[in-house]
Amino acid sequence: MTALGKLPGIGPRSAERVAFHLLKAGDDEAFALAEAIRDVKTKLRPCTRCFNIAEDELCEICADARREQGTICVVEQPKDLLALESTGVYRGVYHVLMGHVAPLEGVDPDDLTIAALAARVKAGEIAEVILATNPDVNGDATALYVARALEGTGVRVTRLARGLPAGGQIEYSSKSILTDAIQERRGL
Amino acid sequence: MTALGKLPGIGPRSAERVAFHLLKAGDDEAFALAEAIRDVKTKLRPCTRCFNIAEDELCEICADARREQGTICVVEQPKDLLALESTGVYRGVYHVLMGHVAPLEGVDPDDLTIAALAARVKAGEIAEVILATNPDVNGDATALYVARALEGTGVRVTRLARGLPAGGQIEYSSKSILTDAIQERRGL
Repeated sequence: MTALGKLPGIGPRSAERVAFHLLKAGDDEAFALAEAIRDVKTKLRPCTRCFNIAEDELCEICADARREQGTICVVEQPKDLLALESTGVYRGVYHVLMGHVAPLEGVDPDDLTIAALAARVKAGEIAEVILATNPDVNGDATALYVARALEGTGVRVTRLARGLPAGGQIEYSSKSILTDAIQERRGL
Repeated sequence: MTALGKLPGIGPRSAERVAFHLLKAGDDEAFALAEAIRDVKTKLRPCTRCFNIAEDELCEICADARREQGTICVVEQPKDLLALESTGVYRGVYHVLMGHVAPLEGVDPDDLTIAALAARVKAGEIAEVILATNPDVNGDATALYVARALEGTGVRVTRLARGLPAGGQIEYSSKSILTDAIQERRGL
């Protein structure tokens, strides 16, 4: 129960519930869970190219010949990659920074995989790098560091659009959202 | 209390509280409120140019010589105008449609002030019309009608940027938001 309670989102009461469930469950279920947990640590590793979670040397996306290898979308974490993949509209590949620049938390640009990205861009035939860090202070600072690291490579650097969120309402939008929406307006 | 209870957001309990407060309050306070309510109906009217709420023939924004009269931002309601004004970044004028196209609710394009906008654009020296309807189905349909009504006038038609909301997180953004963000990405 102590081990279970250390998991994020699982408090002492939930840990107790899970522990009693496992006690009642068959050996099969409990051992399958134990095995799956062991697999996370033994079978998964960072993709050697993009640092996404991978079972082999390359992740499924880097290994997929149908993806456009000349377009790289730069995200903070594998979770962001999954969110973008869920849309089905992006056909390029990714680069996972493994965090964002956060001086107050002691995370420097050197702690991220920015150097590996710059090497990738210099080595390969990359046409576009899309910065897809979060639209907040740390994300913007991170995007700035990445853009600087790519200066001189000649690659086209873009970033995700900022503005009104689809389904939102102008009346209840924050000043920052509305300022972005006005300043980045586009022709019809 | 029945009259108070008809106001939006004021239920029977709140109506009771307000009524007892007015009973205890001095005559001055109660009469001032009554007068203010009467003023809303007698002194305020739609601006003859942009349909914003006005005390005179023209609203404060249309009457302000410092505003760029050649840029018109088209909004659904006066509330949207107030939200955009709160940012302080927009220096043009407005046009209030007084609603949005909603066929299921029986609101046709003719019920809005689209014809008046088209007449304004044809009559005056308007350089740009910014469509600032809500980023939802009705707002998009409305923007389409407005854009069509302006066809042939030669005016530049733009719309507010759509994408990630400032301060948001990619991980928790909907597919529609992320699709907009990817498709409308821009160069750094």
